[in-house]
Amino acid sequence: MNDTRTAPEARLDVAAVGDALLGRWKAERLESRRLAEDPRLHTIPGQSMDDHRARVLEQLGILVEEGAIQRAFPGDLGGSDNHGGNIAAFQELVLADPSMQIKSGVQWGLFGAAILHLGTRTHHEKWLPDVMSLKLPGAFAMTEIGHGSDVASIGTTATYDPETEEFEIHTPFKGAWKDYLGNAALHGQAAVVFAQLITRGVNHGVHAFFVPIRTPDGEMLPGVGSEDDGVKGGLNGIDNGRLHFTRVRVPRENLLNRYGDVAADGSYSSAIESPGRRFFTMIGTLVQGRVSLDGASVRAMQAALAIAIRYGSERRQFPGASGRETVLLDYGQHQRRLIPRLAQSYAMAFADERLLTIFDEVFSGARDTPENREDLETLAAALKPLSTWAALDTLQEAREACGGAGFLAKNRLVGLRADLDIYVTFEGDNNVLLQLVGKRLLTDYAAQFKPGDRAAIAKAAAAQLGERVSRFGLRQMGQSIADLGQVSRSVESLRSTEAQRQLLTDRVQTMVAEIALALREATKGIPKEDRRARAIAGEEAFNAQQHKLIEAARAHGELLQWEAFTEAIERIGDAGSRQVLTWLRDLFGLGIIERNAAWYLISGRISGQRAEALTAYIDRLISRLRPHALDLVEAFGLTPGLLRAEIATGIEAERQEEAHAYVQEQIAAGTWPIHEKELRKRERSGGTTPRPASERERVDA
Amino acid sequence: MNDTRTAPEARLDVAAVGDALLGRWKAERLESRRLAEDPRLHTIPGQSMDDHRARVLEQLGILVEEGAIQRAFPGDLGGSDNHGGNIAAFQELVLADPSMQIKSGVQWGLFGAAILHLGTRTHHEKWLPDVMSLKLPGAFAMTEIGHGSDVASIGTTATYDPETEEFEIHTPFKGAWKDYLGNAALHGQAAVVFAQLITRGVNHGVHAFFVPIRTPDGEMLPGVGSEDDGVKGGLNGIDNGRLHFTRVRVPRENLLNRYGDVAADGSYSSAIESPGRRFFTMIGTLVQGRVSLDGASVRAMQAALAIAIRYGSERRQFPGASGRETVLLDYGQHQRRLIPRLAQSYAMAFADERLLTIFDEVFSGARDTPENREDLETLAAALKPLSTWAALDTLQEAREACGGAGFLAKNRLVGLRADLDIYVTFEGDNNVLLQLVGKRLLTDYAAQFKPGDRAAIAKAAAAQLGERVSRFGLRQMGQSIADLGQVSRSVESLRSTEAQRQLLTDRVQTMVAEIALALREATKGIPKEDRRARAIAGEEAFNAQQHKLIEAARAHGELLQWEAFTEAIERIGDAGSRQVLTWLRDLFGLGIIERNAAWYLISGRISGQRAEALTAYIDRLISRLRPHALDLVEAFGLTPGLLRAEIATGIEAERQEEAHAYVQEQIAAGTWPIHEKELRKRERSGGTTPRPASERERVDA
Repeated sequence: MNDTRTAPEARLDVAAVGDALLGRWKAERLESRRLAEDPRLHTIPGQSMDDHRARVLEQLGILVEEGAIQRAFPGDLGGSDNHGGNIAAFQELVLADPSMQIKSGVQWGLFGAAILHLGTRTHHEKWLPDVMSLKLPGAFAMTEIGHGSDVASIGTTATYDPETEEFEIHTPFKGAWKDYLGNAALHGQAAVVFAQLITRGVNHGVHAFFVPIRTPDGEMLPGVGSEDDGVKGGLNGIDNGRLHFTRVRVPRENLLNRYGDVAADGSYSSAIESPGRRFFTMIGTLVQGRVSLDGASVRAMQAALAIAIRYGSERRQFPGASGRETVLLDYGQHQRRLIPRLAQSYAMAFADERLLTIFDEVFSGARDTPENREDLETLAAALKPLSTWAALDTLQEAREACGGAGFLAKNRLVGLRADLDIYVTFEGDNNVLLQLVGKRLLTDYAAQFKPGDRAAIAKAAAAQLGERVSRFGLRQMGQSIADLGQVSRSVESLRSTEAQRQLLTDRVQTMVAEIALALREATKGIPKEDRRARAIAGEEAFNAQQHKLIEAARAHGELLQWEAFTEAIERIGDAGSRQVLTWLRDLFGLGIIERNAAWYLISGRISGQRAEALTAYIDRLISRLRPHALDLVEAFGLTPGLLRAEIATGIEAERQEEAHAYVQEQIAAGTWPIHEKELRKRERSGGTTPRPASERERVDA
Repeated sequence: MNDTRTAPEARLDVAAVGDALLGRWKAERLESRRLAEDPRLHTIPGQSMDDHRARVLEQLGILVEEGAIQRAFPGDLGGSDNHGGNIAAFQELVLADPSMQIKSGVQWGLFGAAILHLGTRTHHEKWLPDVMSLKLPGAFAMTEIGHGSDVASIGTTATYDPETEEFEIHTPFKGAWKDYLGNAALHGQAAVVFAQLITRGVNHGVHAFFVPIRTPDGEMLPGVGSEDDGVKGGLNGIDNGRLHFTRVRVPRENLLNRYGDVAADGSYSSAIESPGRRFFTMIGTLVQGRVSLDGASVRAMQAALAIAIRYGSERRQFPGASGRETVLLDYGQHQRRLIPRLAQSYAMAFADERLLTIFDEVFSGARDTPENREDLETLAAALKPLSTWAALDTLQEAREACGGAGFLAKNRLVGLRADLDIYVTFEGDNNVLLQLVGKRLLTDYAAQFKPGDRAAIAKAAAAQLGERVSRFGLRQMGQSIADLGQVSRSVESLRSTEAQRQLLTDRVQTMVAEIALALREATKGIPKEDRRARAIAGEEAFNAQQHKLIEAARAHGELLQWEAFTEAIERIGDAGSRQVLTWLRDLFGLGIIERNAAWYLISGRISGQRAEALTAYIDRLISRLRPHALDLVEAFGLTPGLLRAEIATGIEAERQEEAHAYVQEQIAAGTWPIHEKELRKRERSGGTTPRPASERERVDA
């Protein structure tokens, strides 16, 4: 499959690859794309913040009418219990207006989903119908000014009063004010407020409460205050704001009590004994935000590439030796800028499909095990940072590749970039998420060395090439480093799937092992009893390794993407498509190795000669993929109604043709002026010229 | 100087370093900063495009009143012939409102400067007073829809008619329409139009013409049409638009005729014989745009770092072993994100000062030689891409490092980023500029091998360590690679200034030599007579090397920045400041080497062991610089009136204090609830607890 010389005529079957990209929830995606083509749902560039907010609220009403938001809710409440399909459809809305998409995410994916997943039957019946119909717009009040990533330390309190059987919701200082909440500045009538649940003098940690905040007429309720976050870098169709609560009382029943409850007498109970695990279980229901952003980022990336590659295939600049001006995408640098990003977008699309699949398995209950939940969280935490960053990077590179035209709002790239900017820090800050992944990798690594069954299992797993401890945790490699060195010394096999897998796997494994070793060394010699000294030394050591751990997590995420890409190719029947996608996958995999060549060289995994050959081979892959670039973006299936970028409509080719025809016409009519350069050349070569002598003198002066 | 162990108590003299950063045009910079603090000149986030455009036009009037824009114009017309000071002052305006800055750049730096530099005395007297007073707002009509980077191929024609002694300005097809022009959509009453000058059937190449386009009341003049570019990714206070001309006639005298003229009878004359050199001479006057953007980018970078580092020094997140929450800037990853960018901003600031100095030498006439003009163009083409990209990168990293707060317009980062986005492709697309630099490096390289005096000079120069062929062209190294290897094998000397200089210089030189070799090989064997075949082979080879050539140019630009940083340190008297800045310079220099470690490893310049030691040393440098981070941003001298970012005002520290005080108060009063985790820990360790048994049962359930 990897031998590229046998199939020079390989062609992509655009329809087949398009289907593979649409994946399991093709029907929901296509339905949502049709909706996203509706002009009523489109961004109007330059609209004022107030008008944009009003429009987005109306758009949410349209989503309700069109039945676009109900999928994840229970069947008996008008939903269809379709969790994967719900997120898939949601992801597609990014190309209509990201403000509308994210505000709908606030209403149904956060506010509604919190009631669904953290509440119980009574809550569902009481509030979900109005949430679904948008009669009850709400905010998701978790983040505070003072606490974003560290939710466990929020300052808002919910203190139980057994006298009145009420909770008192209170933000005791400015840092405890809830902030950055969509629906908080204007439209929210209630909020799911996260607060430290205090009863009988004990803080049972963060729980969620349903708290009314505004009348339907927009009046704040007593004790509740709101501030507007004002203009933001993007998503200005969303009314983000702050909420503060001064001893606001809600009935005991407003505690969303699926994972923890307070009885009338104030006694606390929970099915989950450990407060830590209870907290992470509650927070874990938020994973769908990350899954949503991962796929939305992929879609934005695809749009950026479709725009820039179509424009780059038509736009010409600087005369070439051929006589005509050169098409941008024929320039080596232009190819280097766009084609590796095209490869990356494919890897990320297939990885998102895997993420969505495991999400659906867990949330549908089909495979809802603690292991699967952990895998889901790890995979989401690994993929969301990489795809959200890649979306910004790709949108920016596409914008630059389209020059001034790329900067105009009508060509979409700048608007999408501005709106997606916040993706990299919300629903989990990217660096914090990668650190989570890194910690999981360290745990997996340590598990191998624990006594008992677990170690035996890990070792057994490791004995089999490519086998894994778990689906998305640390990979184990069977072959020794020496064997691997052997493999990678052959340039042929560097291109093979197995060599790529091993090189990518080895890097993660080795980095994690080195970090684990450094952490173990840090507390050596400090007595077990001196807990504080050990804690401080451990923290310092961890901090010194933090950057490396995050890099290891990034490498792990890239490996997962590479694996997803590789598996997706195996499922494609058409030989031509497999060939082209294999080149693309090779470009993705070898590109990672090239970017990290220093690591591979230092650790003796590849020789300097191989590293040079790698770069030369990547150059060849890029040239080989150049003729397939348009097919590869065509397979994204993004219609003109979804892209809506003037420069991706063929307008540039029309203009080129018009200019070319004008010049040809002038030449044919004999009215095309000779250029002074040409005249001088002719004179130098002694050619005759029809010009009068007087003029020639002046020209030569 | 490089031995860091001797000065653990080194401290930055903030005032002295601040002075070094302000440089030669300190007075002009401070004057302009005072003006930039004026609220009348500030951006209002969320203002509609129409209102913003009207406001910016008014702001331009304020700049005139305040005497802020006259510096570069001739003394007898009310200016002060102060070219360096003019650009220095201009650079500072970016922190008021980039729209105002760039629109003033259009009016006086492009439209006015074209009349000044391409026109002659009559033109100056006729138009400059009104240009300076803003009575005559104008556009700079060079770029066309179809031609951006390749100005020589524009489609607009200016055909001379000796009958009427007029030029006929014409845009014969859509691609020839002038586009992206500030002042074109609304306010411009005239434009300097670049067009192919045709007289007597000969095209003499691109020349500039003064063309009235609108009445003061805003009516388009006959034959002139305008379209609005509409909303953009940023700079929405500027009325960018398109202009098209249908056989618009202007008097012969409207040709800006400094470098080429047409007599009444239609005969053409020019003091510059070669049409190519004539074109580049005219275009060369545009270099001041690049110089302006370079410094403005540095200022935006400094603002971003000042905001993120101040916030990162106050903001706390996640409890540490010390008992309190950890300050963001104490995290290893946060340091890795911000401190190397701080080092980069210093290198770029000092490099910009050098650029401005040579710009002033050339434009003041003090050292206006062809060599200096070439050096100026090379240096501007090398620095502008790196600083404009770095500004976007730094603004984005700062935005992410401030989380959700970074996304709010009131904290400035997103607005500056949006406005500066276009910097990377206007006034010369960054990739095209770097390619220009690459070509200059290839020319310098080839010059060594040409027969005659030039080679002798180059070789003589090369014999002396660190000596250069020209000020900003290709560097020569005296030491052989073997010697260098010796130097860099010692970890101590890897930190030395000379080792850094050699490693950075060697990379540029070797890359250029390799590219030159590959280009020479390409046409080998093709007969000299077969020009077309040689041209095609040459073009293909060049295209295959394009990416590498651009990388070599980037490496050259970084070397120039490193040199500027190094020289600036030598001029600083205070020992503590020199120490801190030397660590910072080392971080910048070694950071470049670390990023390109694969190249150094493959080419045998450093060993794997050294590369690892390098990374460890960079980590140490970063920790060492951490305590100086606030001083280093303090030295930028950016007042609250310039920064205007709420999170950089100390507000976060206040909130932290308020929260901390609240908790302490509660603990003191005995009203702070015990956390369930703590309760369980006490129970596990058999401690007594005051809770009733009934509750404990519930908790344990």
